[in-house]
Amino acid sequence: MLYQMTVTQFTKMLKNLNQILDKGNAYADQKKFPFEALLNSRLAPDQFNLIRQVQIACDTAKGCAASLTGGEAPTHEDNEKTLDELKVRIKKVITYLETFSTNDFRDAADRKITRPRWEGKYLTGIDFATTHAIPNMYFHITTAYSILRNNGVDLGKKDYLGELPFIKNVL
Amino acid sequence: MLYQMTVTQFTKMLKNLNQILDKGNAYADQKKFPFEALLNSRLAPDQFNLIRQVQIACDTAKGCAASLTGGEAPTHEDNEKTLDELKVRIKKVITYLETFSTNDFRDAADRKITRPRWEGKYLTGIDFATTHAIPNMYFHITTAYSILRNNGVDLGKKDYLGELPFIKNVL
Repeated sequence: MLYQMTVTQFTKMLKNLNQILDKGNAYADQKKFPFEALLNSRLAPDQFNLIRQVQIACDTAKGCAASLTGGEAPTHEDNEKTLDELKVRIKKVITYLETFSTNDFRDAADRKITRPRWEGKYLTGIDFATTHAIPNMYFHITTAYSILRNNGVDLGKKDYLGELPFIKNVL
Repeated sequence: MLYQMTVTQFTKMLKNLNQILDKGNAYADQKKFPFEALLNSRLAPDQFNLIRQVQIACDTAKGCAASLTGGEAPTHEDNEKTLDELKVRIKKVITYLETFSTNDFRDAADRKITRPRWEGKYLTGIDFATTHAIPNMYFHITTAYSILRNNGVDLGKKDYLGELPFIKNVL
């Protein structure tokens, strides 16, 4: 279940994010302004801009999968300045997430997970996923979405959620 | 695990949301404007305002718990206009979530869950939680947070995440 809630779902959300950025870019083209104006936008002067929101979403996804499986995530320099560069970053993380299987997560719930800033304290894997990685992932993707929405890009909840895995059947 | 990821975590997030609203209200007091100005703010003209974001977060939490356990959530009229009224709504949902125990969730993952607008199609409980309820819950709480942040309220990630359940121990 942790594999599905993180690897599977985060992969989907990164693909949704990729499409949300494409819609932002199409809007910039249509309005004839450079997409970089949106990439450098933010909702508050002391909040991270859109580029950074995407970078952190990527890092949250890869760091979560690595931590829950006792591995180490690949490092990516935070030097993206264009949509193409951000899309490469997203692609790299999706490719990384594709290297995991459910079996890698068999000890995930009980694994002890820490971060340098946590000063020796730790969270169990299930608590880490539930109270840290998952809320953070959705926070940064929603904020990326909101920055574009706030700037006039025509986005809706479906762009954020993506397709739902419906089963066609009368109950 | 589904109980923890929904009932326990959503309860926590609603408490965080309650405190985020209090901080917004304190900011309005300090700046000497009515908090209703913020309650009626939104990030885009065709997006729901702060009041509606809070109402939907409440409905997502109670609807998720009800659906995963085969019950029916209490109905709340969407008539809140003030902070006090929104806080009553949040409190009612937290009280409702407190009526559940892990045992109520024993069949949750496989339960068939539908909505009137899904036209007879359904999601399994685990898919419903993973791809619908959880992303929606964080979407609306992040958006509520962002509306206040966008209007100058001094909020940070800790207000959103709340306290983490750290275990003090050297790894």
